[in-house]
Amino acid sequence: MTIEVLKPSKGRVYLDNNATTPPLKVISDHISGWLEAWGNPSSIHWSGRGPKTILRETREALADALICHPLELVFTSGGSESNNLILRGTYEHYLRLGRAPHQIHFISTTIEHPSVTKTLEVLESLGAKVTKIKVDREGAFDWNSFEESFTLDTVLVSIMLANNETGTLLPINKITKYAHGKGVRVHTDAVQGLGKISLNLQKLEVDYASFSAHKFHALKGIGWIYVKKNSPLCSQISGGGQERHRRGGTENILAIRSIQEIVPYLKKVGEVFPKIQELRNYFESQVRQEIIDIQVTAEVNPRIPNTSSLVVKGIDGETLLMRLDLAGFAVSTGAACSSGSPEPSPVLLSMGLSRVEAQSSLRVTLGWENTKEEIDAFIEALKSIVVHLRGLKNKLSDKSKIDFTVS
Amino acid sequence: MTIEVLKPSKGRVYLDNNATTPPLKVISDHISGWLEAWGNPSSIHWSGRGPKTILRETREALADALICHPLELVFTSGGSESNNLILRGTYEHYLRLGRAPHQIHFISTTIEHPSVTKTLEVLESLGAKVTKIKVDREGAFDWNSFEESFTLDTVLVSIMLANNETGTLLPINKITKYAHGKGVRVHTDAVQGLGKISLNLQKLEVDYASFSAHKFHALKGIGWIYVKKNSPLCSQISGGGQERHRRGGTENILAIRSIQEIVPYLKKVGEVFPKIQELRNYFESQVRQEIIDIQVTAEVNPRIPNTSSLVVKGIDGETLLMRLDLAGFAVSTGAACSSGSPEPSPVLLSMGLSRVEAQSSLRVTLGWENTKEEIDAFIEALKSIVVHLRGLKNKLSDKSKIDFTVS
Repeated sequence: MTIEVLKPSKGRVYLDNNATTPPLKVISDHISGWLEAWGNPSSIHWSGRGPKTILRETREALADALICHPLELVFTSGGSESNNLILRGTYEHYLRLGRAPHQIHFISTTIEHPSVTKTLEVLESLGAKVTKIKVDREGAFDWNSFEESFTLDTVLVSIMLANNETGTLLPINKITKYAHGKGVRVHTDAVQGLGKISLNLQKLEVDYASFSAHKFHALKGIGWIYVKKNSPLCSQISGGGQERHRRGGTENILAIRSIQEIVPYLKKVGEVFPKIQELRNYFESQVRQEIIDIQVTAEVNPRIPNTSSLVVKGIDGETLLMRLDLAGFAVSTGAACSSGSPEPSPVLLSMGLSRVEAQSSLRVTLGWENTKEEIDAFIEALKSIVVHLRGLKNKLSDKSKIDFTVS
Repeated sequence: MTIEVLKPSKGRVYLDNNATTPPLKVISDHISGWLEAWGNPSSIHWSGRGPKTILRETREALADALICHPLELVFTSGGSESNNLILRGTYEHYLRLGRAPHQIHFISTTIEHPSVTKTLEVLESLGAKVTKIKVDREGAFDWNSFEESFTLDTVLVSIMLANNETGTLLPINKITKYAHGKGVRVHTDAVQGLGKISLNLQKLEVDYASFSAHKFHALKGIGWIYVKKNSPLCSQISGGGQERHRRGGTENILAIRSIQEIVPYLKKVGEVFPKIQELRNYFESQVRQEIIDIQVTAEVNPRIPNTSSLVVKGIDGETLLMRLDLAGFAVSTGAACSSGSPEPSPVLLSMGLSRVEAQSSLRVTLGWENTKEEIDAFIEALKSIVVHLRGLKNKLSDKSKIDFTVS
């Protein structure tokens, strides 16, 4: 199955698909027409009927693709809101049941997205308890600590499906079975799973999951959560009763409409998976062959097929990224959301990489549309830039030695 | 100044502009091209630069139109999120300072939008204190009760700029001066002010304000809050540090771009205001001349120029709305967000209308694009439907009398 997305201009190659993805061309072709359904779906006159139909049809199509009931899906503004809603909404549920903050305990990991990590920090500052399970540099989840972390106050396990920086797949199914055995519900941040692995919410058995549409070729500003029937959740945007009182606010119909276009692809992930994985594996083997002193982080354990997290020894990741940018290649050092910060990735540090290693990291994340030719061109550029930068560094370090002796 | 919006199909007239508005035609014309800037604005490579520029330019243009500093504006997903963010964000700020929930007191009114009312109910359920000031059926704000409502624990006054159902303008400037004199900050839900009255945040003097773009011809799924420099606020969507850590999540660049197109109109509101008010006043005087037993709610006090809230005696508002819909006219009974609910508007009830009056209410809200011809056609249709429905009711009531005597 081929996919047609908005292409970058000639000479540019986009390899940062975990940050965001180009929208489908069909979305760009039809978006102006979709605007005709500009009414408020809550209006009961003619202008509300088109938008209301779009809302219902998208929910049904998405539920069909992800294997759940349409009413188990709640549209939000994106992945970050989704994660915040589930964590804060669970906390508030137990508060309103009369629990003291310190009797509300969450289990998570050290490698979650900031929208989980930072939210748990806020809840901790309000008195909640949080245990973070370690994931090591090979991507191995510390199962023993996980088993030991449950207390009588544990209300939720919140563990991501796939890590955005290394691609590491967490054993969600096993985690869920264990947590359910303890009577504890499970949330998974599935944002990086969408379009990368086959998703079947029924088989996954989690109680809550978070998604973001722009991570797989639909518009920004829209995402959704899965809330299994009868799972408690306090809305974090109270308002006019939209989304069955679980998320207030006039629905973003245009962005919701765009989701319908990605549904056929979501159903074909299983077929495309091996092709992307093959290209990623080809990239990793070629790059190690062509460039010395390159490591792949978390290679041993299962990963989503599109992600490659490298440590390029002796190179500053930020400098490398900027050189690659000049050559037309878009990649990233850590998470895009955290960029601008000069600090090395907290996720990589928590996995046991040194500061120097984390600062030398490069993330390459493929999309369905990337070709072998693009990967070959990228390896060529990467090789020449790395050789150049390493040469420069050696020269500078020689020079600084001389300068130092002189001064 | 004329405005060009997406027109409804022939024979249809949209008079429900407080629910949502048709987007500008220029947005529909250019939206496909805007999608070229699909990158993540946090990415530091080529794909992030276009989106980042859009984000900066929109923020600057909007700040220029509303008279504030660009960094005092925080983009959100819309009006409901904006209201929730300010109320919950204030509550959380004081909790984190160590206050007990019952030491956190809010002052609001009985006529706020559900995204304020329901959020305050949630905070009350968590222990916070809330005082609601009454606004009567003439739109008069109970100033004495307001002055008496302040306690040592009052942290925020949250009062809307203009009511969505009756158009009533609240005396925000006076409220703000008084509250500031007491050392208390002020939030105003300004959603219904946008594009209807001239807004100057500096003159308004409030500390926080909420806005929604789709209420004035831009896209859905985007809104913003104004947070005056140095005003505290705890983010309610923690994440990657976007919006200076006040609202996490990848920015909805496409919808943000659409805001740039409404900015020139925002600057001209003062010029257009009298024209819309004249049309609304014409409507009200004509409708009273043509149809007996019609009242205008909250007519005495200042209103936004586009809103008319009628009580059509002896008529069920829902039935009237559906008949008007069949004739091509889009109006509303109460707030669109609350529709689907068979209950009469809580806002109208709180203003002192009886259940019967509230159930006989009709809201007509004009846009910049409505014409005298449309209003004339609407009055004609309204008259004939009202006469028909009242006739039907009389017949039914005669018939039921007969039936009753027979049985």
